[in-house]
Amino acid sequence: MNNNNNIQFIPKGFRAAGVSCGIKKNGRKDLALIVSSEPATAAGVFTTNIVKGHSLKWSMDKIKNNRISAIAVNSGNANACVGSGGDADAELMASFAAKEIGCKKEQILLASTGIIGYRLPMDKIEAGIKKAYASLSDNFHDAAVAIMTTDTFEKEASARINLSGKPVTIYGMAKGSGMIHPNMATMIGIILTDANISSTLLKRALDTVVNKSFNRISVDGDTSVCDKVLLLANSMAGNNEINAENEDYSTFLAALTNVAVTLSKMLARDGEGATKLAEIRVKNADTRETAHRIANAISKSPLVKTALFGEDANWGRILTAAGYSGAVFNPDTVDIYIGDVLMCKNGTGLQFDEQRALTVLKRNEITITVDFKMGDAEDMMWTCDLSYDYVKINGSYRT
Amino acid sequence: MNNNNNIQFIPKGFRAAGVSCGIKKNGRKDLALIVSSEPATAAGVFTTNIVKGHSLKWSMDKIKNNRISAIAVNSGNANACVGSGGDADAELMASFAAKEIGCKKEQILLASTGIIGYRLPMDKIEAGIKKAYASLSDNFHDAAVAIMTTDTFEKEASARINLSGKPVTIYGMAKGSGMIHPNMATMIGIILTDANISSTLLKRALDTVVNKSFNRISVDGDTSVCDKVLLLANSMAGNNEINAENEDYSTFLAALTNVAVTLSKMLARDGEGATKLAEIRVKNADTRETAHRIANAISKSPLVKTALFGEDANWGRILTAAGYSGAVFNPDTVDIYIGDVLMCKNGTGLQFDEQRALTVLKRNEITITVDFKMGDAEDMMWTCDLSYDYVKINGSYRT
Repeated sequence: MNNNNNIQFIPKGFRAAGVSCGIKKNGRKDLALIVSSEPATAAGVFTTNIVKGHSLKWSMDKIKNNRISAIAVNSGNANACVGSGGDADAELMASFAAKEIGCKKEQILLASTGIIGYRLPMDKIEAGIKKAYASLSDNFHDAAVAIMTTDTFEKEASARINLSGKPVTIYGMAKGSGMIHPNMATMIGIILTDANISSTLLKRALDTVVNKSFNRISVDGDTSVCDKVLLLANSMAGNNEINAENEDYSTFLAALTNVAVTLSKMLARDGEGATKLAEIRVKNADTRETAHRIANAISKSPLVKTALFGEDANWGRILTAAGYSGAVFNPDTVDIYIGDVLMCKNGTGLQFDEQRALTVLKRNEITITVDFKMGDAEDMMWTCDLSYDYVKINGSYRT
Repeated sequence: MNNNNNIQFIPKGFRAAGVSCGIKKNGRKDLALIVSSEPATAAGVFTTNIVKGHSLKWSMDKIKNNRISAIAVNSGNANACVGSGGDADAELMASFAAKEIGCKKEQILLASTGIIGYRLPMDKIEAGIKKAYASLSDNFHDAAVAIMTTDTFEKEASARINLSGKPVTIYGMAKGSGMIHPNMATMIGIILTDANISSTLLKRALDTVVNKSFNRISVDGDTSVCDKVLLLANSMAGNNEINAENEDYSTFLAALTNVAVTLSKMLARDGEGATKLAEIRVKNADTRETAHRIANAISKSPLVKTALFGEDANWGRILTAAGYSGAVFNPDTVDIYIGDVLMCKNGTGLQFDEQRALTVLKRNEITITVDFKMGDAEDMMWTCDLSYDYVKINGSYRT
């Protein structure tokens, strides 16, 4: 379940730190700083929620026209819905980091995650950024810990490839546990690379990859106001600039996908209270849109998710969720598998081996496959089960 | 929480029975029969799920061109997703009732609710219908019990009005607890009246009322394959036929709304594992569509619902749900109240009295009001909290 012990590759020129600045209780780490020695080309994907946090708005704005020197993240307090003071706090937080680093405040991206509606304690943020700057190193583990909220483990992944004879490294960290759903739920992903790649292609790569990774996970269908994936590329690997969709771009895209998918599956597996990771595969739908609607409805259904928690082979709920997804299909051609156990053939329940089904359901990774036999479109989502602990964690988040 | 002890008005000419026929364990009632001595004009609203149960399809078909003599309902087994045998079982179930009553099988409406994917035990159904027919009476309570699945209490409501000098009665029963969401979730509503009303106006009245009642509740956002509201009018009150939208129609509509709203609130309150009923009010939105999207998103949000369970005044989750609803609005004019406590003004969190908030949240009926100050459109939904028991009930439904 945990990737902690893996050695991570770190791209050239990036250093990081994760410290405690006193926002969270009990001395838990709550401030991360990631710095690139060369200002980096940056791309971002931001929440689609119409309500947007102040730190997020800062980053959305500054990423447009600036090369980025650092990302400052605090957890425990979201800097959202506090009025215009929140915008001032974001600017001040960026200024603190810029002062340490010696760059413009516009070159600092921000992320804040945690409770909504409370002003950031700026004195703590200032002291935290100083402390973090003083402890920057090649060890990114503490930063990955410092961005967590209700996460139970830190999420890191990396890849190394060769481009024009140079080793190029991609490293990513992510946080997020509840409120996870496509289009940037309460989730932060930060991906760093020393690749030399044009701004246009970096943005294109991120959009492509997010759609196959972070936009394919659902914990509870909620999407939050502070959430984003940031991708920085500082060119320090020295490869020839990727400025066309050539072989180097393909290699880079594959490695980036690998990092993003690994992080995404970790996010789904660490869904609040989750005990199982489920992969929902929709096959042979007539259109991609149909496939997506169905995978999405199944991955969100509280009834499917509680059945997974209860290890109950309730395929009827899977078919039911497909049925209310808004997609149009013929119920009489649908096959449903949990693991490799066929439970429903042509829309009709089968007598299946309950013991074999239970063996599948007891695993901590479960694949649900729904085959519509209508065409050749497919889609998939990762989700988790819905347990008592989801209720426990979310019943008293503020207190 | 319970309406059991209320005396219900029963419309003329209707009799009912609820018996145990052995589908459910432990001798619990699982078969209801409701008979009208005069064939009744009927209207229905059926699930929008693309997957439809066999008993439901029978009723959707027969209601079109027949006056209805009876409704037969079994609980414990849904008669859904079992292939063409399920259609044959529905026809047979109707035949059993028709034989007892002495009418055509096409005059029998059916409802089956419970686990999906298993054939109905037709021997038990046959014996149950005989037993129910033999015990028909003016007491509808046993029938209201026999249609329940995971409901913790039976749901009945009635009203009596005067039309053209004649007393007219409306009686309704409903079941449903999980999988409850607008557009006929795993819910059955049966409403009976002795009013004399044209078929066209009966259908119009039902559509109008369902939209204000059964389509305004959400337990978990899931909608099922077997669910419907049926309305029978047997004319036996002897009032002048309602055949225009006149004063009698208005009086009838108001009474019907009252019965349907009462049943709907009971359904939301009895949401699986629910400890609280919440009314989500959206005010001053720019359009009705905006208001509805927002009320719907808030009423479905697992994070809002767990916070209600935890009595946690987490208004940030309410604003967040509005933000991802798909509705477009200005976050900077939004006010949020829980009960009468204003927690967020113009999109910004307020210092509010936590103790007063807790007093409100400890009640078992809670109103959440979100004021957008954009226009004069409004909508509302009833929902419930999400508790440990929701997970418990749904983690092992089949077993």
